Amino acid sequence: MPELRKDPVIGRWVIVATERAARPKDFKHTPAEAQEGECPFCTGKKDPAIEELFSIRNDSNRDQWDVNVVRNRSPFLAPSGELWRKGKGLYDLINGVGAHELVIETPAHIGNMADLEVPQIDKVLSTYVQRMRHHEADPRLKYALVFKNSGWDAGGGRVAHTRSQIIGTPVNMKRVKEELENAKRYFEYHDRCIFCDIIRQEQELKERVILENDDMIALCPFASRFPFEVWIFPKRHACDFYTLDGTARTSLAGMLKEILLKLKVLLSDPPYNYVIHTAPFRRQNHKKYWATIDEDYHWHLEITPRLTKVAGFEWGTGFYICTTVPEMAAQYLREAAAR
Amino acid sequence: MPELRKDPVIGRWVIVATERAARPKDFKHTPAEAQEGECPFCTGKKDPAIEELFSIRNDSNRDQWDVNVVRNRSPFLAPSGELWRKGKGLYDLINGVGAHELVIETPAHIGNMADLEVPQIDKVLSTYVQRMRHHEADPRLKYALVFKNSGWDAGGGRVAHTRSQIIGTPVNMKRVKEELENAKRYFEYHDRCIFCDIIRQEQELKERVILENDDMIALCPFASRFPFEVWIFPKRHACDFYTLDGTARTSLAGMLKEILLKLKVLLSDPPYNYVIHTAPFRRQNHKKYWATIDEDYHWHLEITPRLTKVAGFEWGTGFYICTTVPEMAAQYLREAAAR
Repeated sequence: MPELRKDPVIGRWVIVATERAARPKDFKHTPAEAQEGECPFCTGKKDPAIEELFSIRNDSNRDQWDVNVVRNRSPFLAPSGELWRKGKGLYDLINGVGAHELVIETPAHIGNMADLEVPQIDKVLSTYVQRMRHHEADPRLKYALVFKNSGWDAGGGRVAHTRSQIIGTPVNMKRVKEELENAKRYFEYHDRCIFCDIIRQEQELKERVILENDDMIALCPFASRFPFEVWIFPKRHACDFYTLDGTARTSLAGMLKEILLKLKVLLSDPPYNYVIHTAPFRRQNHKKYWATIDEDYHWHLEITPRLTKVAGFEWGTGFYICTTVPEMAAQYLREAAAR
Repeated sequence: MPELRKDPVIGRWVIVATERAARPKDFKHTPAEAQEGECPFCTGKKDPAIEELFSIRNDSNRDQWDVNVVRNRSPFLAPSGELWRKGKGLYDLINGVGAHELVIETPAHIGNMADLEVPQIDKVLSTYVQRMRHHEADPRLKYALVFKNSGWDAGGGRVAHTRSQIIGTPVNMKRVKEELENAKRYFEYHDRCIFCDIIRQEQELKERVILENDDMIALCPFASRFPFEVWIFPKRHACDFYTLDGTARTSLAGMLKEILLKLKVLLSDPPYNYVIHTAPFRRQNHKKYWATIDEDYHWHLEITPRLTKVAGFEWGTGFYICTTVPEMAAQYLREAAAR
């Protein structure tokens, strides 16, 4: 019989289809169509109209970048202008001020982050950290969202050159808000971080843990929405992703590479997304509301392979059907080679 | 400059991209691959292993059905068994008891509901109503979700024979719960239904209204998540979809056909989903909680064409980017022919 599982953080029920459980070879995905013309992200071919915002320079050739951050050519949010808020009858709106940036993760024409070397992934993570710190200084912004669309079915576009995006927004997003509110409620009741509790419980049960190193743990969440969904947590409690540095950052780079490689090998280079969930900025303005956030919230990274068509009712209901049991997915991923 | 708009019911912010506003011809979609073998939904070719649950018989030939409801061959939820709930450490689970049915909307091999005659669509709506009443009598179920996946990119599968699905669940879905809670909160403050207020405001402003008849109104919602998203409301307040009958049901059938035809003509037969949002069952068990639901909640139907790839961050954040301004979409839809 299938199971209904509730995500303890978000409170979302998921149907876990135990009987027609899909195995890795059951999934097909649409390969990206061939790209026309030159890659706009390769070194030297860069469109001069694209504004460079930040880069990590190459140690042996300072003219060359290792990671490059540029303004998105058609940004979803406008980089300059004063923020206004207004009501229109019962509707609320804000003008679209914010940041929308592209992180080009390597000068080489490589399609999947899984194929970057660990030190290069470490530089990408360092870029995220530095851009987040930069956005935190902008008083108009409440949140910086770091995410990746890799492959055609994941919204990654036609150009196969590995990159991620950063969106800085003047509002907190609904899902983020819910996560924060529920984490806060759990803390009020238990005086413990819900994510720390999840990590401890998963370490005891072991069935959903994929990998662990000194700093990080990767697991398939109990109420996975998608087959082969993976969450990576820092083992030491921290609410802000941008506090990550040193060996912990390198640990995450190594784990990220290993997980992405396992997904690539196991699922034939699937399209995937990841999103970093972190605490919002401007907490000093709502001290009372965020009184315990340093203790109650725990940043993490959510990786979702895009193997199934998401049907209509997920959108309307926030109710998902996951056709691979998370414990089975974790076992496949533990056993998959990472090369 | 783009705008950030907040959905007044759900409280979800949406970026409305005003500058790179996409027009109908800007969207491409994947046509479904050719189907192999015979259609399993056409009359007489039906798999005898599929259990018929309900049908509306043809007036002139009682051996023939006009609308047929069958159990889904691989249902997401098991139809029989007792419901249990349990905790597993900090996780909650329920066994997957519930209903999962297919509504075959016509014996003819027609792919899009838009191409059914109005009386046939009326029979489909009548089927929804009767199945919902049936599920309400099952004490294990809290909700019946009626939805449609039409076309490959909308999760409609390879067989182009118009059909919809009904899922009866032992839990209330997250998005539904949020809608109900927010509608309740609005009612507590204003003593008015938020949806009735939206309808009144839209009737005054006119810019987002597509169609109106005596009983129904169709509009592009202020904070549309998707280009050309359409919501249809009954103009007379009612919280339960299954109270719909007589002329109001025929009005909805007519409006649904007109909207689906306009979408078909305007957007070259796009994949789309619709979901009926209605009040939950078993309200007598939580009388205090649902004390005002008859007054505060308003059923409606949400149609979402699937024209854009949904990227990673929407999943992680509940934050959407809509590349067609809803007022523009409404104008296109008002002007589109419905044939």
